[in-house]
Amino acid sequence: MSVTAAQGFTAAGVRAGIKASGNHDVALVVSQGPLFTAAGVFTSNRFKAAPVLWSQQVLLDQELRAVVLNSGGANACTGPDGFADTHHTAEFVARELSSLGTEVGPGEIAVCSTGLIGERLPMERIYSGVTAAVLELRDTGGDDAALAIMTTDSVPKTSVVERDGFVIGGMAKGAGMLAPGLATMLVVITTDAVVDAELADAALRAATAVTFDRIDSDGCMSTNDTVLLLASGASGEQPNADTFTDALTQVCADLALQLIHDAEGASKDIRITVEEAASTDDALEVARAIARSNLLKCAIHGEDPNWGRVLAAAGTTSAAFEPDAVDVAMNGVWICRNGGLGEDRSLVSLAGREVDITVVLRSGATAATVWTNDLTADYVHENSAYST
Amino acid sequence: MSVTAAQGFTAAGVRAGIKASGNHDVALVVSQGPLFTAAGVFTSNRFKAAPVLWSQQVLLDQELRAVVLNSGGANACTGPDGFADTHHTAEFVARELSSLGTEVGPGEIAVCSTGLIGERLPMERIYSGVTAAVLELRDTGGDDAALAIMTTDSVPKTSVVERDGFVIGGMAKGAGMLAPGLATMLVVITTDAVVDAELADAALRAATAVTFDRIDSDGCMSTNDTVLLLASGASGEQPNADTFTDALTQVCADLALQLIHDAEGASKDIRITVEEAASTDDALEVARAIARSNLLKCAIHGEDPNWGRVLAAAGTTSAAFEPDAVDVAMNGVWICRNGGLGEDRSLVSLAGREVDITVVLRSGATAATVWTNDLTADYVHENSAYST
Repeated sequence: MSVTAAQGFTAAGVRAGIKASGNHDVALVVSQGPLFTAAGVFTSNRFKAAPVLWSQQVLLDQELRAVVLNSGGANACTGPDGFADTHHTAEFVARELSSLGTEVGPGEIAVCSTGLIGERLPMERIYSGVTAAVLELRDTGGDDAALAIMTTDSVPKTSVVERDGFVIGGMAKGAGMLAPGLATMLVVITTDAVVDAELADAALRAATAVTFDRIDSDGCMSTNDTVLLLASGASGEQPNADTFTDALTQVCADLALQLIHDAEGASKDIRITVEEAASTDDALEVARAIARSNLLKCAIHGEDPNWGRVLAAAGTTSAAFEPDAVDVAMNGVWICRNGGLGEDRSLVSLAGREVDITVVLRSGATAATVWTNDLTADYVHENSAYST
Repeated sequence: MSVTAAQGFTAAGVRAGIKASGNHDVALVVSQGPLFTAAGVFTSNRFKAAPVLWSQQVLLDQELRAVVLNSGGANACTGPDGFADTHHTAEFVARELSSLGTEVGPGEIAVCSTGLIGERLPMERIYSGVTAAVLELRDTGGDDAALAIMTTDSVPKTSVVERDGFVIGGMAKGAGMLAPGLATMLVVITTDAVVDAELADAALRAATAVTFDRIDSDGCMSTNDTVLLLASGASGEQPNADTFTDALTQVCADLALQLIHDAEGASKDIRITVEEAASTDDALEVARAIARSNLLKCAIHGEDPNWGRVLAAAGTTSAAFEPDAVDVAMNGVWICRNGGLGEDRSLVSLAGREVDITVVLRSGATAATVWTNDLTADYVHENSAYST
């Protein structure tokens, strides 16, 4: 049910002919209120796509009535004309929604796009898609919406968490260009909890910082990453900050792991945990350096427990540790002790899809985990043939 | 002729049975003087292999009599035992060379190793290889030495430059784990010029900074990178600093480009030039970010002029530029102007092996170039099957 699991939301996903495949490519998510609280986090890439610039702007007043999303084109690096396209899209959505009865302004509409960078969107198809989506809006439309934001994703990604009296549901897309800050992805999360703008923003930042910000498929950061949270208040339930943040983090973590699991060409899900670090920053720096080692990712693909490549990656960081005090385990076998040979590497089995790498820095008491996947010939094939 | 092109050097390369392939795996380069001036630059990886730690130490007095090198094992992350192995190797080489007549100490012997990280070397084979190599030392032995340092290299890499009255020759190995600071590589360069230790060190640092430090095959930094320069003075010619540095840079650039050309699985040589940057650091930061984009490297492999991936990589840096003022050309076609659409991407041909990417930041007057290669299924195959 994705974004329509929570009360107070309708959604639709339609085929507008933007994607060459003919699959669903325009999604609409609409809040019925009574609240229209919203928060968003966006890519830290300096080349921000037009829809990111637009959505950041409309979120300044921390309210949203609707989100319109398209696949088949990122509307990134398209200059002032591309920004005008996004603006016109929001105006068109506002006009179509207003025709249903309630007056909606373009400044209450977030826009998300995903697909090839550097091409203008086919605006007539966007418009006809929006018109069709408005007619299709249902409180069961979440699954169609999740279909319409897919690009190279092999499956739609949705997640729902129910807590005492309220629901949080979300949808996500993303299969490549996945890297911290954020991954190449669009995520829309809805809730019927009663939350104010301050809590919505704080909870979303806290949840994404330990979930979407900690997956790294290929080290490539997108121009379009967007995570939006819309709260309708329709349940009447007002959870406390911890409860709400915890439930939101659960949805974000579930969606983030679905993204890694479906990453382009991936055959292994790799969890890298750095322990006994002096700080979270140190733990993350080491974990991310390891997650970005093409050589290690190839070795894992080949089911080779090549811990030398783990250390070689860790050795490029400035995190606090002594090289001769570092331990490394793969799937529970401590194959590296004190920066040198540990247990026999033949004891490690990497045959399963899940691979656990633990690095102990012996410099403090902090730990952090980053998720990545292996590097495969399929990744190369997919990304040499497909323009994104 | 590689390291024996210059007067005053003998070399050998032998099969010692360290590599499973049975190919040449121990090399020896010996200076006959009259000078024994030497300089070295080493990996900045914090997990430095035992031979790197040893060679850094013996170079403190800026003289070398010989360099012993082995492939088939990196002797990295092998702890105190591995360091003792390197020490014993130097002692053994010193004893064997002393038996030829001139007294040589272990502190005059540099050691280089390359191959799998995290395994001890088979010392008996090292010893018998050294004994054989000492017997084989010839002033024509440079080519055999270049063979003996190969790992996944498909061809040996050598270069010779002759200037007025002096010669500089070198050999290099490296095909993967190639990244700035330095690449995974061993390089030995010899010259018969009369140069003092100060010039040798300054010239080597200047030359490597603009050559080996600017190639990045796969973003992975090795534990064993070493570039050594030995000057015998045997020509009697004393070039000035500029002439010597220029000639040395030419040899280093030639060897660096041979490394990129032979990088694992590569089918394209990519030259990334960043122009009109505010500083060399800015130009290099942007060029390196682009060189490390797996998505771009896959696109180039697929001959897709995907400039959006160039901008997406540049957008992750902190270099001074305005996103809407950046231009990008591929093979001379300005497909991105002012951060948006430029000439038609169909005008770009990426059919040849050489690919030129130019990025103009419009923030200053500095330019820098980084060389990389494409990411291919062959790279994945080679690095999932081969433990390095």
